[in-house]
Amino acid sequence: MMKAPTVDDVARVAGVSRQTVSNVVNTPDIVRETTRLRVEAAIAELGYRPHAAARRLRTRRSSTIGIHLDPYAGGIAGVVLDRFVHALTESAGERDMRVLLYAARTAEEEIDRLSDLREGGEVDAVVITGTFHGDPRTGWLNARGLPFVSFGRPWGEDDVEAPAHLWVDVDGAAGTRAATAHLLDVDGVRRVAFLGWPGGSGTGDERERGWRESVGAARGPRWVVEDSVSLARDAVAAGLTADPAVDAIVCASDSLAIGAHLATALAGRPDVRIVGFDNTPAAEALGLSSVEQLPERVASGALELLMGDGNVVAPRAATAGAAHVLVEPRLIVR
Amino acid sequence: MMKAPTVDDVARVAGVSRQTVSNVVNTPDIVRETTRLRVEAAIAELGYRPHAAARRLRTRRSSTIGIHLDPYAGGIAGVVLDRFVHALTESAGERDMRVLLYAARTAEEEIDRLSDLREGGEVDAVVITGTFHGDPRTGWLNARGLPFVSFGRPWGEDDVEAPAHLWVDVDGAAGTRAATAHLLDVDGVRRVAFLGWPGGSGTGDERERGWRESVGAARGPRWVVEDSVSLARDAVAAGLTADPAVDAIVCASDSLAIGAHLATALAGRPDVRIVGFDNTPAAEALGLSSVEQLPERVASGALELLMGDGNVVAPRAATAGAAHVLVEPRLIVR
Repeated sequence: MMKAPTVDDVARVAGVSRQTVSNVVNTPDIVRETTRLRVEAAIAELGYRPHAAARRLRTRRSSTIGIHLDPYAGGIAGVVLDRFVHALTESAGERDMRVLLYAARTAEEEIDRLSDLREGGEVDAVVITGTFHGDPRTGWLNARGLPFVSFGRPWGEDDVEAPAHLWVDVDGAAGTRAATAHLLDVDGVRRVAFLGWPGGSGTGDERERGWRESVGAARGPRWVVEDSVSLARDAVAAGLTADPAVDAIVCASDSLAIGAHLATALAGRPDVRIVGFDNTPAAEALGLSSVEQLPERVASGALELLMGDGNVVAPRAATAGAAHVLVEPRLIVR
Repeated sequence: MMKAPTVDDVARVAGVSRQTVSNVVNTPDIVRETTRLRVEAAIAELGYRPHAAARRLRTRRSSTIGIHLDPYAGGIAGVVLDRFVHALTESAGERDMRVLLYAARTAEEEIDRLSDLREGGEVDAVVITGTFHGDPRTGWLNARGLPFVSFGRPWGEDDVEAPAHLWVDVDGAAGTRAATAHLLDVDGVRRVAFLGWPGGSGTGDERERGWRESVGAARGPRWVVEDSVSLARDAVAAGLTADPAVDAIVCASDSLAIGAHLATALAGRPDVRIVGFDNTPAAEALGLSSVEQLPERVASGALELLMGDGNVVAPRAATAGAAHVLVEPRLIVR
């Protein structure tokens, strides 16, 4: 069983004390040059590396970014966040940073975990996800000066143009605008419905806005359900009966789009065009067009906001008027 | 902006030197009792916590488990691993452990990352996934004494009954056996085909074995394709034309099951029963029965192997004849 070389090994090979090895590593200026060269030779020979915990203690930097991972909820919705975590891990690795996961079921529990991580010096910065109106996490983080970026804009909390913290988000309105324009221009549809969630969710309202602002004279009905395949199926079945002229549906999510797909299949209306949102594997498997959030760009945007362009570990603290990155999603046509 | 209390704050409040505070925290026996009590009172009053990096340095424990996260590959297959990472994060959190993610594209790159994490003392143990015949990671980890568990049994490397390392896996043969038995007993089908991958993948061979050993006289053809919805669709379309008596298909994955579903729909054969494997959101959305891998049990099994039943951070080093956990999957009937 091989062990990584320790400071004791270096001291023995160089014929000096542990303290001298430590001085060479931490404060080389105070060490006599001949001694320093002998210790450095031993370090090189043995492949000794100062323990990360020791480096961390000196620099008070952990080279680690924390991110909360929800319990797996089932269904289709979690895929985008998982892709984001994959991409964040890769981008962070390229910058020689690590990603640390922590679990929490509520915002309050998450604050407890953040408190532990901060007090332990275990993270340099955190990424929070799923921001909501009145989210207590952002104020808590700002008050303690722990650098962070949110995946999700600061809904209602302050002005999007001059936010109190860094954020990265996907431009949902641009996504449904592209979907609506494609249906009108390329597919030549006449009456475009919107299938979305009940109002009040910032994300859902944005996605509806993109459809509303671009659909023009082709504006069809607006159907609203919770994010469920079966509820969407029933709503679309009833909607198409009431308004058979609808020949296209822009959906706020792939769950809704799959419900719409089932309803049109059951109603013998395969002519109705459907566009989903999130470009999940389920939509891909069914051959449904969908708006792709580009989680990889969201992840690299989050890291750029936190660290700048360099490879250096230098998370920027949140400041008033902090920057943001808004990623324009891409319509995948199938 | 509030700051966590430091050793200097404690020293000031207690009226002692920093060194004395450090002694109270690290080597309380050498501190005079009256001084110790005064420092402990100041620690309690301020809510001071020794920096995690300092604790880590003393204990050489990071309370952290590393796990590799692949680049997101698209498609349906990644969902099980993502659920496993979610569950591992939750189970680890309950034991006051963290999960650290690292990225790597090849086994060699993964060994480089593991080497960094080990030398830096950044992880106590690692979970490796996607083990394969001749996997170089297990030998490397064993040689260096870094505790680890693999999600995936040691295919071909050594005897499953006396493996050289800890492993946890899902009993794929039990899953397809349950699927086949259900089709025969409950659905009363007469001819059950198997749709799987080319031979040689341990996972795929196991899933085929479960069907083969339980199908008996109802044994239908065995169709083999790479894990792709469209290849599966074409294979099943051709297969049903050649052998129209097939009235059920047991599939090695949900991707294959979705392809089979599309083929039966296009061929006007909705009577053909299909069972997938992985119970992904895509299968759920399509209403397909599928074998559920129970990633939550796999995750808690992995942690039990590494840490025992206690809450203490005590990863067990790999030993010859190391233990394993084989999770029996569950058929979800839709």
